[in-house]
Amino acid sequence: MNTAYSDRILKTPKSFIREILKVTEVKDIISFAGGLPNPISFPQDTLQESMNRIVNEEGAKPFQYSTTEGLRPLREYIAERYEKQQNLKVSADDILITTGSQQGLDLMGKVLVNKGDAILIEKPGYLGAIQSFSLYEPEFIQINLNENGLDTDQLEQELKKQQVKLIYTVPNFQNPTGLTYSKENRKKIADILSDYPAILIEDDPYGNLSFDGEIYPYITDGKLLNGVLFGSFSKIITPGMRIGWICTKNRELMSHLVTAKQASDLHTNIFSQYLINDYLRQNDIDIHISKIRSLYKEQCGAMLNAIDRYFPKNVRVTRPKGGMFLWVTLPDGKSTMELFYKALEKNVSFVPGNPFYVQGESFSTMRLNYTNSSKEMIEEGIKRLAGVML
Amino acid sequence: MNTAYSDRILKTPKSFIREILKVTEVKDIISFAGGLPNPISFPQDTLQESMNRIVNEEGAKPFQYSTTEGLRPLREYIAERYEKQQNLKVSADDILITTGSQQGLDLMGKVLVNKGDAILIEKPGYLGAIQSFSLYEPEFIQINLNENGLDTDQLEQELKKQQVKLIYTVPNFQNPTGLTYSKENRKKIADILSDYPAILIEDDPYGNLSFDGEIYPYITDGKLLNGVLFGSFSKIITPGMRIGWICTKNRELMSHLVTAKQASDLHTNIFSQYLINDYLRQNDIDIHISKIRSLYKEQCGAMLNAIDRYFPKNVRVTRPKGGMFLWVTLPDGKSTMELFYKALEKNVSFVPGNPFYVQGESFSTMRLNYTNSSKEMIEEGIKRLAGVML
Repeated sequence: MNTAYSDRILKTPKSFIREILKVTEVKDIISFAGGLPNPISFPQDTLQESMNRIVNEEGAKPFQYSTTEGLRPLREYIAERYEKQQNLKVSADDILITTGSQQGLDLMGKVLVNKGDAILIEKPGYLGAIQSFSLYEPEFIQINLNENGLDTDQLEQELKKQQVKLIYTVPNFQNPTGLTYSKENRKKIADILSDYPAILIEDDPYGNLSFDGEIYPYITDGKLLNGVLFGSFSKIITPGMRIGWICTKNRELMSHLVTAKQASDLHTNIFSQYLINDYLRQNDIDIHISKIRSLYKEQCGAMLNAIDRYFPKNVRVTRPKGGMFLWVTLPDGKSTMELFYKALEKNVSFVPGNPFYVQGESFSTMRLNYTNSSKEMIEEGIKRLAGVML
Repeated sequence: MNTAYSDRILKTPKSFIREILKVTEVKDIISFAGGLPNPISFPQDTLQESMNRIVNEEGAKPFQYSTTEGLRPLREYIAERYEKQQNLKVSADDILITTGSQQGLDLMGKVLVNKGDAILIEKPGYLGAIQSFSLYEPEFIQINLNENGLDTDQLEQELKKQQVKLIYTVPNFQNPTGLTYSKENRKKIADILSDYPAILIEDDPYGNLSFDGEIYPYITDGKLLNGVLFGSFSKIITPGMRIGWICTKNRELMSHLVTAKQASDLHTNIFSQYLINDYLRQNDIDIHISKIRSLYKEQCGAMLNAIDRYFPKNVRVTRPKGGMFLWVTLPDGKSTMELFYKALEKNVSFVPGNPFYVQGESFSTMRLNYTNSSKEMIEEGIKRLAGVML
């Protein structure tokens, strides 16, 4: 018997990265392909203390069904941290705990996007967002990213041309490029958007991972009625627990998101919410984060240093101020897909640029991750990559 | 600025039960409304041992990103248990771990349902399924449930009348009625379905909670090409961890489900998957389950006994052989919504039947949960309910 699948799933790309990761699970490969945090960022011992404390002190609650919105003390902590770091006036009621911030994408797609609705996304853009939104059959329009951030002329032009439902951005240490929007660029975007009803998502998994500790202002800067912030503990505590959040002051939007969340998985793992909350209350997360920051700064530096020494001079590379990725552009006409297979033979992997483009039209770009390899592996891997570039 | 929401979210009912639960969070209320497992079903001490063991032995893996499909040893355990309990020939490759079996509903909707596609669901049916599928804008058709199971004449008639995409059932100790399909009914359904391409979901959260330990055969009985089983650890270990699964031997369907899962939340909490797997490997789950079964048997018996003594004779009630709920039908014309508010004044709550019907047309039915109240509370609550019925 033939099964007829939905139009939406037939239009949704499989994750290229996951397919790559399967290939690269071989031992001894130097992988710059994934987006894995370095395991030193998991505070395992203190998490273990927190686990035992919550089992001993909280009784059955971490094991029972719980509220869709999420654990209130954790939502309060997140709201207070926004106030402390960014001077944002938000409360626990503005926070919805999600099963990783990936789920935030799905929920936003669910509550906002009708088939054919226009979504603006960076060019290149986070492929997980392209995949997740694809399920709601939007029309994607990509807006060029440059060293300063979004191309605001193109942004304005596209907003004029059609009704745009949703704009998805990663303003800090963007995935895949590592670029960060300048303060002027953020202001300009905010000015433009004030004339349109489009909802702006600022997805911010890496904001705390700036190498020099600088915290950048959000584009929406607290005016969260048509703005939505995504946050996550994946890059600063653990991704395995899948705890992220959506923050918005738009109560009607929040109410729809809660309904969509309920329909999707009832609520996020409550044991892990108790655990992360206890960890945050009993430890100074900023001391922990500063360790991750300096490790990633060193690793990024090692990669850029090796690139400068080994790569041909006509290869361009971004110089991130934080986060987990950098972005390489080969001279025109050189295909990174071809390079990928050559590199694999030398046991090095990376992600070719194509899946970060809606039309898959980029042949000469690639993403490199530096957080999950030692400096020695970075040196060796870049050297091998250079070898197959020539 | 006005936001235009998606058609799908505007058509999706808010969960009536969650709204009720908010009302009934007052202290001293006797609640038969929720669907909470009894906390004695959470093996907290042994789970704590497992937690410490996996943190000590598994290193960073329970804290890192993981595969979309789920932890392989846990999927192997589930497959082996199907073989042991049901003689089903399934393997780990046929199992996808989900964020609770509620997520299974969302994923099935995502990969199968186009707007307007026909979905058959029991009448009355699980309201979480109605809510979850609503997001994919299907046409719902409800098939009557009776003491033997589904009305197979009506089932066949509806299958003939239109192309049906999906059939959703809870054959064991159904939510909301507590009814169980007879073996003959299951056979008859399987015969009918063999002529149609519709996918059959057998959602089975309660199958292990039969009072006398009997395990019922699945309708699909291992022929899982157009059949899908949902399972869950929520009712036998802990719902707080949100670990459920989808089982099907249809590889094309599975591949689409994995893509949809990836887009939805990348993967389910991997720490909890390690935890549940360790617990299952180090303990005899069936000894644990037998404790839950005998408690629920007692509680159900206490509720039926009190109903027999206190309720008017013209009130009908189902007599479940397992699970967590029973279903009460008042004489025609009596409204359980009206009764609900009267009962609340006496500090007793339940779920009126309406939200279990797609058209909301039932005025005289209600669902009672017996698993989360002591025998004394059950006696007192039923007495008070009877008092407002007269």
